[in-house]
Amino acid sequence: MNMATATTEVFTVLPTVDDHHHDRRRYPHGVAFMDGQYLPMSEAKVSVLDWGFLHSDATYDTVHVWNGRFFRLDLHLDRFLRGVEQLRMKLAVSRAEIEAILNNCVALSGHSSAYVEMICTRGTSPTFSRDPRQAENRFIAFAVPFASVANKEQLERGLHVVVSETVRIPPKSVDPTIKNYHWLDLVKGLFDAYDAGAETALILNVEGHIAEGPGFNVFAISGGSLKTPGFGVLPGITRRTVFDLCAELGLPVSATDVGRDELASAEEVFITSTAGGIMPVTRIDGNPVGAGQIGSTTRRLVELYWQKHDDPAWSTPVHYSR
Amino acid sequence: MNMATATTEVFTVLPTVDDHHHDRRRYPHGVAFMDGQYLPMSEAKVSVLDWGFLHSDATYDTVHVWNGRFFRLDLHLDRFLRGVEQLRMKLAVSRAEIEAILNNCVALSGHSSAYVEMICTRGTSPTFSRDPRQAENRFIAFAVPFASVANKEQLERGLHVVVSETVRIPPKSVDPTIKNYHWLDLVKGLFDAYDAGAETALILNVEGHIAEGPGFNVFAISGGSLKTPGFGVLPGITRRTVFDLCAELGLPVSATDVGRDELASAEEVFITSTAGGIMPVTRIDGNPVGAGQIGSTTRRLVELYWQKHDDPAWSTPVHYSR
Repeated sequence: MNMATATTEVFTVLPTVDDHHHDRRRYPHGVAFMDGQYLPMSEAKVSVLDWGFLHSDATYDTVHVWNGRFFRLDLHLDRFLRGVEQLRMKLAVSRAEIEAILNNCVALSGHSSAYVEMICTRGTSPTFSRDPRQAENRFIAFAVPFASVANKEQLERGLHVVVSETVRIPPKSVDPTIKNYHWLDLVKGLFDAYDAGAETALILNVEGHIAEGPGFNVFAISGGSLKTPGFGVLPGITRRTVFDLCAELGLPVSATDVGRDELASAEEVFITSTAGGIMPVTRIDGNPVGAGQIGSTTRRLVELYWQKHDDPAWSTPVHYSR
Repeated sequence: MNMATATTEVFTVLPTVDDHHHDRRRYPHGVAFMDGQYLPMSEAKVSVLDWGFLHSDATYDTVHVWNGRFFRLDLHLDRFLRGVEQLRMKLAVSRAEIEAILNNCVALSGHSSAYVEMICTRGTSPTFSRDPRQAENRFIAFAVPFASVANKEQLERGLHVVVSETVRIPPKSVDPTIKNYHWLDLVKGLFDAYDAGAETALILNVEGHIAEGPGFNVFAISGGSLKTPGFGVLPGITRRTVFDLCAELGLPVSATDVGRDELASAEEVFITSTAGGIMPVTRIDGNPVGAGQIGSTTRRLVELYWQKHDDPAWSTPVHYSR
């Protein structure tokens, strides 16, 4: 239906109600699972009345597949299932079933490298009651092509980041260990970054220290030691992986307060995310980090991070077919 | 497709990908507008990839229709359009077009009393870029039957409320004047209320004073004066309406800090929401408010509030047909 027509006709005759939505949008290639069905991404939709949309009452996790292997799937499942429990939601699928569903979404999509999301929303109640206890919680999963916070050029020369004054939603409001979609603070940070000519942002915690950025944690390296913010941030799986890699490399690392000054004077800085792994930062607030080049410790960690993707101790194969 | 079958078959053959989602959920009767079409509520869905879902990157407003008339539609449109601008989104529809669309949603639904929502989501970009500037923002509207925070019994005897220790997302994180779907703090408050045997909750602001509840503002009356929290809350239209009604009745009212003790010792307490109007509270944290009955000032305000729904200065007619 044409919008202009709808508008001019409003005070003469009412427009008709169509039976079906005609969606002309393009969607990335992938496969979703919902309500027992495997579907193309164009069909993966939730009602505007789902509390997962209307109240962002949902938790999720994202795991990636690289060269046909899930990376640290167990850790992502652990975090997801814990979040579902903390939000007092119930899944109609078991952990083993989720694993099978994620495998199938990737296998059916055919992607050898994929960004795989599992979601639990509060759903809705059959009576549209506002009582969340009466809602039928909903599980959704999908696999789309692998995505990265940093593009190829940015990975090669390091990201340009600004520190925004926006404060990350504090733990007393929303528990950051329950991975959630409350991102308006992070989106505000992103716009602050664009305004300053940078590519992405770090925002602060309530105490004025560095927290995290849109979809990533951050690490600073000074005097050979690594530090990452310890309070008010998502306990990222890639963040944890850095701790594991540091243990292997004998590098000291700690989760603690990271001040703005400390970040500005760091020798090396990198961000971590399932969407891209370990990604170097070479400019902060317009100034070079260290010598303005990707540092040697960051390079070692990036290399080891990707090596682990073939290691059966860190990854599990996707069963594409039999 | 049967879930059990899908699971047991995963390591033998892959399941098939269906063309279309079969949704067996029931939806409230109503009409939605999206992408130039008017649709039944069962068709009003957004992609799981829309940033409005994945990042709760959206703003909205809800206006109600009572006895065939919109109540204070202009104020809701003002707030909605301001929120869209603040989030740096762009609407493909003008204010006049939105008015016509909302009218049509209500008229086509046939509801004489309706809960009418207008939404703008960040949308997605055709390339699924993570850059919000590249997203095609999306306008959606719908009309469903009128809903209330308090049911009939609760309106007659007053709500039972608890004060939860949960802290409302502070303004430094998310601007509360931009009406948003970041509700996990409010949902946490609701569960705290249920655990305490109450019906709904008030949560705190960062300073430990009373903020608001899930979908409503709150007022306390002491010594003939009304107070409502001034900081860190949504500037509700019903809240503003109470100020206007108080001016008419010659009642002193102010937006300022409201302490927990102050609320506990108030003579009367009520909450305000487009979903239900002015709703009395007669128990807080298990103790009666005043004498535990709905107070006389609350009753006067409730009465005047509903009277205004027929007043052309406060309401505008829905054009159901011509």
